[in-house]
Amino acid sequence: MNIGKIQLQLAAFAKERDWDQFHSPKNLSMALAGESGELLEIFQWLTQGGSERSALSEEQLQSATDELADILIYALRLADRLDINLETAIVEKIKKNAARYTIEVARGNAEKR
Amino acid sequence: MNIGKIQLQLAAFAKERDWDQFHSPKNLSMALAGESGELLEIFQWLTQGGSERSALSEEQLQSATDELADILIYALRLADRLDINLETAIVEKIKKNAARYTIEVARGNAEKR
Amino acid sequence: MNIGKIQLQLAAFAKERDWDQFHSPKNLSMALAGESGELLEIFQWLTQGGSERSALSEEQLQSATDELADILIYALRLADRLDINLETAIVEKIKKNAARYTIEVARGNAEKR
Amino acid sequence: MNIGKIQLQLAAFAKERDWDQFHSPKNLSMALAGESGELLEIFQWLTQGGSERSALSEEQLQSATDELADILIYALRLADRLDINLETAIVEKIKKNAARYTIEVARGNAEKR
Repeated sequence: MNIGKIQLQLAAFAKERDWDQFHSPKNLSMALAGESGELLEIFQWLTQGGSERSALSEEQLQSATDELADILIYALRLADRLDINLETAIVEKIKKNAARYTIEVARGNAEKR
Repeated sequence: MNIGKIQLQLAAFAKERDWDQFHSPKNLSMALAGESGELLEIFQWLTQGGSERSALSEEQLQSATDELADILIYALRLADRLDINLETAIVEKIKKNAARYTIEVARGNAEKR
Repeated sequence: MNIGKIQLQLAAFAKERDWDQFHSPKNLSMALAGESGELLEIFQWLTQGGSERSALSEEQLQSATDELADILIYALRLADRLDINLETAIVEKIKKNAARYTIEVARGNAEKR
Repeated sequence: MNIGKIQLQLAAFAKERDWDQFHSPKNLSMALAGESGELLEIFQWLTQGGSERSALSEEQLQSATDELADILIYALRLADRLDINLETAIVEKIKKNAARYTIEVARGNAEKR
């Protein structure tokens, strides 16, 4: 995925609609959390097994796809507005997680530390 | 960003820790929304101007970077578990949005449709 | 507000529909967060001034009222399922907050501690 | 629970700390959603059975109690700022739900309508 290219597209999309005024980092964090809430609603009454791909209806899978896309779009837009390099951020975070959740300690135990 | 490569890394990370049992789509949607909530907490008492990069402290910017990375990590992991092609999903969603929010109708108006 | 009475009503509502199977604390926390996401969506593109009652449309105010009611309903239901006394919990939390955010330290500063 | 009395207490608490400037409905909706995210984090890796009171540790139950109290506090504060009568709102919402989810149609099926 060419993140920079998608971010340019999203920036142009917002500019053409005069939406930059709405896209403060604060507002984008709200939009992202709003979409995460919609994602939750797809899964909230399902069992864990019932939330697996093989158990979802076409419609549920399409909804999950749409919500994930919305979440990514707002995340890319927010990273662009804050001038955060997402790829570096992810690589750094995976390193931090590997140090925090060592295999010995974290095996079979997903508790937050 | 090579999404597939990161997804493989995240899958190996989970497998080594025997975390696949925790990573149902339902649970991952909760983790993603939990991180979105932490992102909100950075911005909740700031003005819109105060949420712009130039107004944030180093610490606030680092927190936002960490939370965005966590959100992306869970989104990539969830897409992997549901076998959703995120890049296609984003391209499709941008097309849908362009049709729903035409420039004429949406100029200066970010209301949901 | 007679919390106990409303909780009994909600419990009967769920029982009549055979919904107890869906109302695990885990699922109720998802439903509550989903409704909080819908509340966010009402305010996400508004300025702070634009989110005040005097600036909201009838429709926006009605939506906020509905979402707040949904949030309360799920919170009461969850407290009932976990046998948590909400009134005591609130009184205790206000005391904790008063100790954590003393007037001297917190005046004009809403930073989390 | 005397909602009005708690709302007065919360209003005084904010006023003493000069926090009214932070408590716009927009910001309160973010704080409420942030706390809902923290509630999710308690339950995210648990099974449904593992989220029941009998299966929670003392610490998990205390965390859930604290988060529920925070959610209620922000909900009461937001209702106060928007001059929404929460008790009426809940009664109305339960009526709407009874009409939308009739026993015949909704029995054993929690799908959103």
